[in-house]
Amino acid sequence: MVAPVLDRFDPRLDPMPPPVDRRTLIARLERVLPREALIHKTEGMRVFETDGLAAYRGMPAVVALPANVAEVRAVLKVCRELGAPVVARGAGTGLSGGALPTPGCVLLGLSRMSAILEIDAAAGLARVQPGVRNLAISEAVRPLGLFYAPDPSSQLACSLGGNVAENAGGVHCLKYGLTVNNVQGLEIVTLDGEVLRLGGETLEAPGFDLMALITGSEGLLAIVTEITVRLTPLPEATQVLLAAFPETRAAGQAVADIIAAGLIPAGLEMMDRLALTAAEAHTGAGYPLDAAAILLCELDGAPEDIGADLERVRTICEAAGASLARIARDEAERERFWAGRKGAFPAMGRMAPDYYCIDGVIPRRALPEVLDAITRLSDQFGLAVANVFHAGDGNLHPLILYDAQAPGELDRAEALGGAILELCVAKGGAITGEHGVGREKINQMCAQFTPEELETFAALKRAFDPEGLLNPGKTIPTPQRCVAHGAMHVHAASPPFPHLDRF
Amino acid sequence: MVAPVLDRFDPRLDPMPPPVDRRTLIARLERVLPREALIHKTEGMRVFETDGLAAYRGMPAVVALPANVAEVRAVLKVCRELGAPVVARGAGTGLSGGALPTPGCVLLGLSRMSAILEIDAAAGLARVQPGVRNLAISEAVRPLGLFYAPDPSSQLACSLGGNVAENAGGVHCLKYGLTVNNVQGLEIVTLDGEVLRLGGETLEAPGFDLMALITGSEGLLAIVTEITVRLTPLPEATQVLLAAFPETRAAGQAVADIIAAGLIPAGLEMMDRLALTAAEAHTGAGYPLDAAAILLCELDGAPEDIGADLERVRTICEAAGASLARIARDEAERERFWAGRKGAFPAMGRMAPDYYCIDGVIPRRALPEVLDAITRLSDQFGLAVANVFHAGDGNLHPLILYDAQAPGELDRAEALGGAILELCVAKGGAITGEHGVGREKINQMCAQFTPEELETFAALKRAFDPEGLLNPGKTIPTPQRCVAHGAMHVHAASPPFPHLDRF
Repeated sequence: MVAPVLDRFDPRLDPMPPPVDRRTLIARLERVLPREALIHKTEGMRVFETDGLAAYRGMPAVVALPANVAEVRAVLKVCRELGAPVVARGAGTGLSGGALPTPGCVLLGLSRMSAILEIDAAAGLARVQPGVRNLAISEAVRPLGLFYAPDPSSQLACSLGGNVAENAGGVHCLKYGLTVNNVQGLEIVTLDGEVLRLGGETLEAPGFDLMALITGSEGLLAIVTEITVRLTPLPEATQVLLAAFPETRAAGQAVADIIAAGLIPAGLEMMDRLALTAAEAHTGAGYPLDAAAILLCELDGAPEDIGADLERVRTICEAAGASLARIARDEAERERFWAGRKGAFPAMGRMAPDYYCIDGVIPRRALPEVLDAITRLSDQFGLAVANVFHAGDGNLHPLILYDAQAPGELDRAEALGGAILELCVAKGGAITGEHGVGREKINQMCAQFTPEELETFAALKRAFDPEGLLNPGKTIPTPQRCVAHGAMHVHAASPPFPHLDRF
Repeated sequence: MVAPVLDRFDPRLDPMPPPVDRRTLIARLERVLPREALIHKTEGMRVFETDGLAAYRGMPAVVALPANVAEVRAVLKVCRELGAPVVARGAGTGLSGGALPTPGCVLLGLSRMSAILEIDAAAGLARVQPGVRNLAISEAVRPLGLFYAPDPSSQLACSLGGNVAENAGGVHCLKYGLTVNNVQGLEIVTLDGEVLRLGGETLEAPGFDLMALITGSEGLLAIVTEITVRLTPLPEATQVLLAAFPETRAAGQAVADIIAAGLIPAGLEMMDRLALTAAEAHTGAGYPLDAAAILLCELDGAPEDIGADLERVRTICEAAGASLARIARDEAERERFWAGRKGAFPAMGRMAPDYYCIDGVIPRRALPEVLDAITRLSDQFGLAVANVFHAGDGNLHPLILYDAQAPGELDRAEALGGAILELCVAKGGAITGEHGVGREKINQMCAQFTPEELETFAALKRAFDPEGLLNPGKTIPTPQRCVAHGAMHVHAASPPFPHLDRF
């Protein structure tokens, strides 16, 4: 989505703190930060106007780039005292507008805090600053036989601080868990300038699980200034199987059967016809173009185990109706299979001028049904949808193809995206797997949660941030926004595990 | 600890809600609950006076035993309206006094809500009420080839609701995670009677991670009325290796080396000389009585993998100085090895009239040093200490042996326990691994956390329970209590990963 839609905040639906005099704000920040750590000319702030959800833009009052915890505390103290909103930003790769500047905000960029502070190979831990890139950790610890498991598509660019804010996932999270499962300690600064250290070196900890609460809190509760991550031993060997299916439903069945058999692939990815065709044209991965859907199933571990397990996966795929189930014959072919998957998003450029990437999650058993429903919605809205996703954990990534220059297509793409997300909720799933809610999905939160649940979120937010200064207008919709959105409260009508009620 | 120490709540240190007229309270509850669901005669309430921390006792105003969510809501509404404290109780097996009645409280027992509501083998989920016993789930799903992994020692008796409240662990949590890692959904009732459903069938969920926040919150935030747990496929095979060491330090080294080698045992337990001697006398497990410490290392999975991995474990143990490293030759011997470990606590009855079980956790690398320090403390306090513990995750269970009839010994046992816990904190660990804080360790929370961290806990508590009615006087100490305890704030002086600072 590249159309420059300006600031969509609506003061009636998204209450904001009262405006702060911009000159006073800048003057106060100049007293606590070195000159080079503040940007307030429009030209310099342009790059901070948007994040990965490029259709949404907003200009901050000022950009602050602290270099250490003391400077983060100082900035927050100024904001607290003046009542200025604060929007934290990592690498700006987020896809849900979590780092979109709200009107008059201090954009708190953490990119300068980018040091790997410590690596303890024996304990399997690394302590890093929030601006460290995800992939940089794996690169640093590879010589020690370790890696950092969560691998969002943006792992080359995205930062650990952003990963914590969004509870980022990736291909490997089926086996190795989300960010929250791979973080062992956090240092945070609260709005009143307190520095808290959460979690620690041991698995268990007393007291409320603040670390889990902060992880995925999208910049609404505190600023993360240090992260202790768990490192995972590099697997001895890795192999991948490519299976092709004459219909999507059969591929969905194979996914369910693989998991039900107790196999835990390191990755289990699915691509439908449109996605695999684009990817094949883009990278020449060797995908069969006559398939309705393909699965890529990666297993890692000891070589002898992988062999036996891959045979089981092959048998399951064939039983589900696969027309082809082939193990990559060597490392080169394995890399080629994955290159197609990793290039699937950019490959969409061949299909349409723009695409909008949705991130929903559903119970695995609902896969065939939901894919059929997405096809119907696609016809109804008159926009093509390609499906590329983490099938193993039911995390969909429908890509809506559109042309931002064609009148009305962006609005239609957004409406279709919203309809797909509400479909996910209705099928017992959720409106985000790994991209977060941010600004993008704030309306869908009204479908996901009851008013009482949203009020519980709001009460927790107030416990950390009574004045609502941290990332206002994001993630938690106000009751008036839900009324305006005409929310259908799916949860109020049916329990979240509707399929269980059949028993 | 069996000495009947009566109610130790101190109104100056543990502020309680103003007293409620008991007759009014009972009369109001009688309007919303059937007669058989209320107990208010002293004789009938006797059994609810204490939990597994038997030295602490207190008499509730009334015991309420709701049979469904509607009755839980009704009880909470009455308590909210009258301002009466509410203490939730599962099976009452907790060891930290979490279910100890506070003065004038409504003791809310959940034992009647004990149905397994649904089992979905394909999704690997079970939906249960809070009163269901831990082991009952594994028994119910065994025919389907599944089990529920967290296995506290009390698993025969303890309830899932209590497991969630305490975030219970067990021998298998090294490989399979704590309760929080095995729960996928919760239904809770808040103090104002709202029913919220947290989590769901999918791995990811938007919004703050309320499920993780509630898990381990020890009855301070809400009442859990339903739990959806993840089920794990039963391993194809299980084997155990017994290793004996001439000194504890060498056993600690072997533990560190096993984990550093990337092996993840299903269980990795350590017993010192006093513990293994008592266990051997009690059960005839076949432990070598000349050892200073033994390790039991259990591996599970495919038979061919286990064989190779057990050989690696054996090599590591021998390299660390094991005088013996033997794989159980058959199922009977495997069961005998474990019978000794499982009988270690009752076996202590041979050694002393009473014992006090401590639950601390330390980084694995600190094991040898902490065990030495516990020996010194034991000498200093003049009380023997036996060590039996989950070595793999650094979760200590020192058993302090004493005689409650001997004047001063109980106080000395408590003081020694407190000293051991503060030692754990000083070494980068925590004051509880799996037993919770409850009433027992409320003073040690002052050593574990800074005043700012405790205030953050208190603010979260207020977000759910502004009047402080849910389990008052537990888990979160007031500032005045910390002052009275003369807390040494270890965290304020050093970061929680002190060893990392050496790099």
